[in-house]
Amino acid sequence: MQAQKKIAIYPGTFDPITNGHLDIIKRAKHLFDEIIVAVATNTGKQPKFSLKTRVKLVDEAISDMDQVSVEPFDTLLVDFVRKKEASIIVRGLRAVSDFEYELQMGYANSSLDESIETIYLMPTLQNAFISSSIVRSMLDYGGRIDHLVPKSVSRMINSDACDL
Amino acid sequence: MQAQKKIAIYPGTFDPITNGHLDIIKRAKHLFDEIIVAVATNTGKQPKFSLKTRVKLVDEAISDMDQVSVEPFDTLLVDFVRKKEASIIVRGLRAVSDFEYELQMGYANSSLDESIETIYLMPTLQNAFISSSIVRSMLDYGGRIDHLVPKSVSRMINSDACDL
Amino acid sequence: MQAQKKIAIYPGTFDPITNGHLDIIKRAKHLFDEIIVAVATNTGKQPKFSLKTRVKLVDEAISDMDQVSVEPFDTLLVDFVRKKEASIIVRGLRAVSDFEYELQMGYANSSLDESIETIYLMPTLQNAFISSSIVRSMLDYGGRIDHLVPKSVSRMINSDACDL
Amino acid sequence: MQAQKKIAIYPGTFDPITNGHLDIIKRAKHLFDEIIVAVATNTGKQPKFSLKTRVKLVDEAISDMDQVSVEPFDTLLVDFVRKKEASIIVRGLRAVSDFEYELQMGYANSSLDESIETIYLMPTLQNAFISSSIVRSMLDYGGRIDHLVPKSVSRMINSDACDL
Amino acid sequence: MQAQKKIAIYPGTFDPITNGHLDIIKRAKHLFDEIIVAVATNTGKQPKFSLKTRVKLVDEAISDMDQVSVEPFDTLLVDFVRKKEASIIVRGLRAVSDFEYELQMGYANSSLDESIETIYLMPTLQNAFISSSIVRSMLDYGGRIDHLVPKSVSRMINSDACDL
Amino acid sequence: MQAQKKIAIYPGTFDPITNGHLDIIKRAKHLFDEIIVAVATNTGKQPKFSLKTRVKLVDEAISDMDQVSVEPFDTLLVDFVRKKEASIIVRGLRAVSDFEYELQMGYANSSLDESIETIYLMPTLQNAFISSSIVRSMLDYGGRIDHLVPKSVSRMINSDACDL
Repeated sequence: MQAQKKIAIYPGTFDPITNGHLDIIKRAKHLFDEIIVAVATNTGKQPKFSLKTRVKLVDEAISDMDQVSVEPFDTLLVDFVRKKEASIIVRGLRAVSDFEYELQMGYANSSLDESIETIYLMPTLQNAFISSSIVRSMLDYGGRIDHLVPKSVSRMINSDACDL
Repeated sequence: MQAQKKIAIYPGTFDPITNGHLDIIKRAKHLFDEIIVAVATNTGKQPKFSLKTRVKLVDEAISDMDQVSVEPFDTLLVDFVRKKEASIIVRGLRAVSDFEYELQMGYANSSLDESIETIYLMPTLQNAFISSSIVRSMLDYGGRIDHLVPKSVSRMINSDACDL
Repeated sequence: MQAQKKIAIYPGTFDPITNGHLDIIKRAKHLFDEIIVAVATNTGKQPKFSLKTRVKLVDEAISDMDQVSVEPFDTLLVDFVRKKEASIIVRGLRAVSDFEYELQMGYANSSLDESIETIYLMPTLQNAFISSSIVRSMLDYGGRIDHLVPKSVSRMINSDACDL
Repeated sequence: MQAQKKIAIYPGTFDPITNGHLDIIKRAKHLFDEIIVAVATNTGKQPKFSLKTRVKLVDEAISDMDQVSVEPFDTLLVDFVRKKEASIIVRGLRAVSDFEYELQMGYANSSLDESIETIYLMPTLQNAFISSSIVRSMLDYGGRIDHLVPKSVSRMINSDACDL
Repeated sequence: MQAQKKIAIYPGTFDPITNGHLDIIKRAKHLFDEIIVAVATNTGKQPKFSLKTRVKLVDEAISDMDQVSVEPFDTLLVDFVRKKEASIIVRGLRAVSDFEYELQMGYANSSLDESIETIYLMPTLQNAFISSSIVRSMLDYGGRIDHLVPKSVSRMINSDACDL
Repeated sequence: MQAQKKIAIYPGTFDPITNGHLDIIKRAKHLFDEIIVAVATNTGKQPKFSLKTRVKLVDEAISDMDQVSVEPFDTLLVDFVRKKEASIIVRGLRAVSDFEYELQMGYANSSLDESIETIYLMPTLQNAFISSSIVRSMLDYGGRIDHLVPKSVSRMINSDACDL
């Protein structure tokens, strides 16, 4: 067991990445050898930020972390996990509705590949209310977001480097 | 009481019908004399399959069941129930968010007609995670669905007999 | 199917029976041919009313209902259901915590006997907050209970006919 | 403290205002000196009624209430609260999914301005199942709504005075 | 309305009072003219601290707050509220199970006296996980509690001034 | 990071160990190098099985698993985790009420030691309804438990080797 590198995939839309996401990445980092943040291309809903920007914002946020990388994916999640020779999916849990949805997706994924394990982490209390949709609301109305997202993200968004 | 036939309506979008739905239909069949699967025409959201296909897929899935039929409906559910001379609505319960929504709809329906009874059934454990939206995700990414839907449904969908 | 009488068991502690319970009994009566209210002897917690009183209070409350009876039981519920040649368990659903517990018990029961079906009914809105524990709280502090329990129950309790 | 007028903001989409909303407004009226119903201009989803109509329907519903007014708003809620020199946000709580969402929004708002207090009220039992989306469903299918909305609202909607 | 003093009752077991409780008291203080913390004598479960100690710990914790007092009560809550000529009950909301229980109690209380309004407040995020039972667990195993309870409380408990 | 052995603690009452618990142990085993099952001595409630028996039943159930051991503990969980030089707590998640409780305990533990990470795993679907309390109910009424607990456990319990 000790010889095999543990690679975990952290999938999501990241529209945009928040302090809550970054929190989960750091925690996962303590548990496993390598983390790949997987940005979903097609999410059923129209994202606010383009795929390219969403990947770039994650990339900036993790730039000082070792063994953490970001990649877009446009397949079934279990196929992406296998392609990366990973066997672990990491998900953040925030609230009851998250929980139900996660339960359903976890069972759907394990119905496709039982060897893939999904683990759930909870963000620290001060990040527990943050979501990408709250960040987007703030942006729509000119509210400040610097306490909700990584510094690099708020800098990039405010500098109009993004495709808003 | 024994003289009156008990007719139950099982309403939904069925986009498409899943093993979870079929499970509920079979259970309802043990409880009541006749089951009418009622496929909602207008669902507020754009369905993946046309009404015609959704009805056809249900029809195939129930083809070997006695006293079970399928019909589209485009009215208030309580009006459809009365039109069919039924007095029972059957609903599947899966998770907390289902539960809250069902509670609200059940009370809304009984505010229109107190004589209509809504009963709730839970799918067997192995079907508890299945939903039409999970099936649609699988189809979008080329995942297999044969463990999620009735055989006839996966055959029809794979044979391109459907309007995808 | 039409030849076989549908018998449903409605199990509980009934400590004491409330308007919420009576509501469920009446609804179940519309659905099935016969209802047996099954009063659990041993409930893990010390009931306020003796088994004898709990059965008597149910008996009074259903005295004018046809095809509804009451019986104590001291076995596994599924064994009681089989002994009565019934195949249906009726449960009321009130809140989220109820729902989770009911889900767990429903699956536990069906793991013992798959032929037994559990159905869930919701009480009418005006009874949705009533529980035996609320009635007991009222009794402990001298609050009125006549809007919470069947008339016969409040009369018997107030006349000290019960073993309080 | 006693010298300062307590102004509470009751924000929402009000698409359209229901008896559940009116219930919350009346309760808030007992608690605070002045209530401003704040109709959100931009709600992320396409409302059924125009902003103008939504405001007008609220205005009719509150016409006989003292110290209650209605206003549209198109900013961050906390900015609107400050602009009105209020310090209290009132929200109705109905179900678990409401609760989670409200928790998240409450913490998001207090992250922007800690001096603003959010309080939660529950509607009376008979209004507990009513929501604007249920009213809209009824309207879509020709169901009656007079038991779901204030009299003036059902009158205006039925008289085609609204932009449906 | 402005002439009448708004008195709110904050009932509970307070076994012992925590930072979460104190947070709610401070918020309620911003909303109403006077707050009476009502310590329940009989709670159905055996409290760890005696009534006398529970009242004393609250009293210490609120000693520097104006217009806030503490009293034990041994009646129905609605009777206590009326006796104090109050009309508002304040409750903290923390989690889903709290929410369901609170909903039930709120409706039970309003079934006894419709003129009494219950309002719900959420503790700040950093206090959201704190409960008296967590504090008791810490005390049972010698964990530190100074970040969970008001300073005066941890001082009194540590000085053995309490009846542990 | 790769040089340090990852030790995870799986705490609980295990009254008795079930297939649901064993499922979580096996999943945790895939993720970390060593698992210590920690049986709580004092649980606030009176357990059905003695501590000695609860430990013995776990021991039998894990006898063929490498790098998995069992130990009783009678301290704060975080103190036990530190004593074992571990940094990970593993918990199973089953239902909403679990989820809320786990959230609260997770935050309480991290308030004592931020370096300890709690991760949550979901049991496979067929084990999702199993709990120790369901097993105890079955035992109380003579129901079969062989589909609910590890083989060794049902053998030991049936052979009266336990202190029932």
